[in-house]
Amino acid sequence: MGSEGKPIRCRAAVCRRAGERLEIEEVVVSPPRSREVRLKIICSSLCHSDLTFWKITDPPAIFPRILGHEAVGVVESLGEDVNEVKEGDMVIPSLLSDCQECKDCLSEKSNLCSKLPFKISPWMPRDGTSRFTDAKGETIHHFVNVSSFSEYTVVDVAHVTKIDSSVPPSKACLLSCGVSTGFGAAWKSAKVEKGSSVAIFGLGAIGLAVAEGARVCGATKIIGVDLNPNKFEIGKKFGITDFINPEDCGDKPVSEVIAEMTDGGADYCFECVGLVSLVYEAYASCRKGWGKAIVVGVDTKSYVSISSYDIVHSGKVLMGSLFGNIKAKTDIPYLLKLYMEKELNLDDFVTHEVAFEDINKAFDLLQEGKSIRCVIWMDKAHG
Amino acid sequence: MGSEGKPIRCRAAVCRRAGERLEIEEVVVSPPRSREVRLKIICSSLCHSDLTFWKITDPPAIFPRILGHEAVGVVESLGEDVNEVKEGDMVIPSLLSDCQECKDCLSEKSNLCSKLPFKISPWMPRDGTSRFTDAKGETIHHFVNVSSFSEYTVVDVAHVTKIDSSVPPSKACLLSCGVSTGFGAAWKSAKVEKGSSVAIFGLGAIGLAVAEGARVCGATKIIGVDLNPNKFEIGKKFGITDFINPEDCGDKPVSEVIAEMTDGGADYCFECVGLVSLVYEAYASCRKGWGKAIVVGVDTKSYVSISSYDIVHSGKVLMGSLFGNIKAKTDIPYLLKLYMEKELNLDDFVTHEVAFEDINKAFDLLQEGKSIRCVIWMDKAHG
Repeated sequence: MGSEGKPIRCRAAVCRRAGERLEIEEVVVSPPRSREVRLKIICSSLCHSDLTFWKITDPPAIFPRILGHEAVGVVESLGEDVNEVKEGDMVIPSLLSDCQECKDCLSEKSNLCSKLPFKISPWMPRDGTSRFTDAKGETIHHFVNVSSFSEYTVVDVAHVTKIDSSVPPSKACLLSCGVSTGFGAAWKSAKVEKGSSVAIFGLGAIGLAVAEGARVCGATKIIGVDLNPNKFEIGKKFGITDFINPEDCGDKPVSEVIAEMTDGGADYCFECVGLVSLVYEAYASCRKGWGKAIVVGVDTKSYVSISSYDIVHSGKVLMGSLFGNIKAKTDIPYLLKLYMEKELNLDDFVTHEVAFEDINKAFDLLQEGKSIRCVIWMDKAHG
Repeated sequence: MGSEGKPIRCRAAVCRRAGERLEIEEVVVSPPRSREVRLKIICSSLCHSDLTFWKITDPPAIFPRILGHEAVGVVESLGEDVNEVKEGDMVIPSLLSDCQECKDCLSEKSNLCSKLPFKISPWMPRDGTSRFTDAKGETIHHFVNVSSFSEYTVVDVAHVTKIDSSVPPSKACLLSCGVSTGFGAAWKSAKVEKGSSVAIFGLGAIGLAVAEGARVCGATKIIGVDLNPNKFEIGKKFGITDFINPEDCGDKPVSEVIAEMTDGGADYCFECVGLVSLVYEAYASCRKGWGKAIVVGVDTKSYVSISSYDIVHSGKVLMGSLFGNIKAKTDIPYLLKLYMEKELNLDDFVTHEVAFEDINKAFDLLQEGKSIRCVIWMDKAHG
């Protein structure tokens, strides 16, 4: 390709101030450096974390920044020492590294790469610099190693997974973050078993993906808990078998309702909102003796406080799940295979699609709770 | 036997007031009621919980009481509806019920019987009454379903495990509580794997039994943490490979020392003291990505507070272990088999033996940290 080794001028939706409409402007994307690839983005889906980092004003917020981290792209050019992918490959970028060299990446248990450990950084992971400048030559910051709201972006090779080009991009991009996070929480973190009972607190895309993961793992009772009554109908598409609206429970704690429905408590309880109060509810809703409470929602400021006596006497397990314990380069292709074999429902996550020019509409839809996932197409023809 | 169906007058060490020397006095032991058996105790070993309930003054303390819960006995007589054991059988009583009927007892995952749930109760579990009276006819209370500091005691059949009479009683009694608790924490709660690394905070009998469990499970690095430097030599007998005295670490947290020794943190970390500060240290000492912190020590009053962010981002697991997740009726015979095959070291737990008359000496030895386990023989000939 003619652009190899040269900066590319292209359009990007830049977030210049917290909460303000994104502006589509011309940016310059530097060539990839060692162990990096430059991608032409095909589409992105909008995740709640994009919304969070669009709105917050305190650090780790930083502006100007190019958000977007659930995406599919095509490799446009390679930096030095990249052997894993080649120009023209279709790839999924992901926020967590999978270097395939460190103790964590070599272990089957962990997805927390030690070589390029995850942080909410505004820079490229290896050399701590940016590949984006604006028309005036000023630096634009990256977002969680992806920054896909740009026609081109640069991603570290440890953060890309090659996928089969026959997979529809608007479904594949979902595995870049949210759906993998939820599905993996059930599949790889909790290790949900056939015939087990599951309770899910919060039926956003993550919670629905937990349900889908639990369904695929063979759970027979999948209880969704949400304040929005419409979520039951949506949830059924992903395996939700029972629904609790806490507002309908009167004075009865949700954990008691779940205990009644499951003869003592659910085997696996997932917190998918990021509220400590729901972590307690999830822990309380677990079956004594073996129940697991899995924290998926991110709350960066609170503490979870459990009595020492309960920890020892309940036999329950408290654990977290980051990116669903998914190891991108092995697990994402597996999940796409499940999708192609119609085992995994990705289609119903996509409720809306817009052209890049209408990216702010995607933000509105998610904020208003109208979309599960809105796909943003870079090429006008798709939108 | 001639005593069947009649009260038995015998000697018991009665705890009449918190912290005062036990008095050996005559007591009357009622015949067993439905689903109960009366045992002639052969020997008991003294556990820290006996010491705790001997000393404490606030509820659940209650007096007069017959302590003792690590024991071996012979079935003297049966109440109605007991088919599982017969007169003359050698049995191990245990504080947790294994009814073999409820959802928990039928599950392989749980040892927390739902039918006779564990509580620190002064009564028989099924009908909430006592089988002990003193010479004046006043009620004496039970202790955790066993009360073995008496020549005879009554135990619910859900709390007894029949064992092979060829096993030396002074070794078998250890499996009644402490050694099972520690061994099971490594074997059944944590599921320690071959080649893994383990850190144990507190090398009392429980901590040493965790080490023994980890050793039998194939752990290759077993780090003991204790303020008493003599514990390293003792610990080596149970598989401890490395030792940390926190007083030798200067300003460096123990978790950092463990991280250095294990290339990032231990796979399994056990808190065996009952101090929340050590729960934090154990959690901090776990390997990110997959480390498990297992709380074994009982602290009835404190809370463990962990940041929500850490729970999600560390990939660590926090769990408790009560009685090592041991299911008495299946697991204790298995552990005794391991002992008879010389796979499991029980011998080195027994550091002292005394006659029943000298029971207070057993309390002194444990309080002074001189004994790991002191066996108290009911029959003078053994002591």
